Amino acid sequence: MHFNIQDINAMEERYRAKLINSLSGFKSANLIGTTDGKGNHNLAIVSSVFHIGANPPLVGMISRPHTVTRDTLENIEATGVYTINQVCADIWKQAHQTSARYPAEMSEFEETELTPEWVDGLVAPYVAESRVKFALEVRETQTLAVNGTVLIIGEIVQVIVDEEAIADDGYIDIEMLETVAVSGLDSYHVTNRLARLSYAKPGKGIETF
Amino acid sequence: MHFNIQDINAMEERYRAKLINSLSGFKSANLIGTTDGKGNHNLAIVSSVFHIGANPPLVGMISRPHTVTRDTLENIEATGVYTINQVCADIWKQAHQTSARYPAEMSEFEETELTPEWVDGLVAPYVAESRVKFALEVRETQTLAVNGTVLIIGEIVQVIVDEEAIADDGYIDIEMLETVAVSGLDSYHVTNRLARLSYAKPGKGIETF
Repeated sequence: MHFNIQDINAMEERYRAKLINSLSGFKSANLIGTTDGKGNHNLAIVSSVFHIGANPPLVGMISRPHTVTRDTLENIEATGVYTINQVCADIWKQAHQTSARYPAEMSEFEETELTPEWVDGLVAPYVAESRVKFALEVRETQTLAVNGTVLIIGEIVQVIVDEEAIADDGYIDIEMLETVAVSGLDSYHVTNRLARLSYAKPGKGIETF
Repeated sequence: MHFNIQDINAMEERYRAKLINSLSGFKSANLIGTTDGKGNHNLAIVSSVFHIGANPPLVGMISRPHTVTRDTLENIEATGVYTINQVCADIWKQAHQTSARYPAEMSEFEETELTPEWVDGLVAPYVAESRVKFALEVRETQTLAVNGTVLIIGEIVQVIVDEEAIADDGYIDIEMLETVAVSGLDSYHVTNRLARLSYAKPGKGIETF
């Protein structure tokens, strides 16, 4: 099946959104925890978190300014800090429910019965139920000229993870922790490892481990 | 287990790279097909492809300018077009092997025995073995001030997908097509669907389908 640019432009809006969202492959499922500094806490599921670099440790995400992640964006700009909490199989439905359009004064924590957790004086709440989570200080926000979405880049300042999941070489076994993956707008998946693969070099066979 | 910023900074470099790369959650696995316009074709696995918007259909990715994706970046800047090809379970080891540092004049297609495929006069090659793939015209490249990596944003101009995988609502069942997910730097996974979830609304229960 081939679609060209005219076919894509002619698609019904929701159909196009579901098709285009499926193309990039499996996506991460993360809950973004923020606060407005006045006692209102916000939690939003985001599937666009991506790795930018390890040294310094930088993570990016895309936010739509006029949708349910508006509070998240405003809170990050107001306080400079946020948490990213991996969604595991215990909480995937609650995590999805945070995408409902709650008013700013309602807390997605209360509405979805997820538990806010404050650590070491950080103003942004973690999600207690998440088994891999980290805090970030915002380093850059920029509105992308191509479509008006906002790129948020943060530097990791704290990491909290179940110790049993950390391999000797630093790899975190997020499958053991039942982290879920997303496809399209609304499909959630657990995983089965094929293998880890050795560092690739020209003319050398790959080994599994 | 808690790590603070001092702990992270003190980590051995490869350990830190593996740990930090695990934090963002499951990542997409895609092969980027490019050409230099002089007969040299390039293929590189990238785990940082992410959705930016559906209308216009925009996809982003992060490229490190001084590593194995250098040829990819230069080819995109030279020709303006590239393909993104989802990695499925049939070709995951070959896809990983493209991350070896081959010289620019060697083709990763030949070295990994993946098959280049040209469609409709597009100068960039697709991967014949991939079952979900699309072509893009570059809309923006920018070097990120935070660490010198390059953000590449492209607009989708063609989509090729097995028709049987497209649901009535536009969702593409990439699990049926055995698309793989990546965690950390080197771990590959297939998936098992938990369910698709209905659009979330305040005060309304979520339905699975």
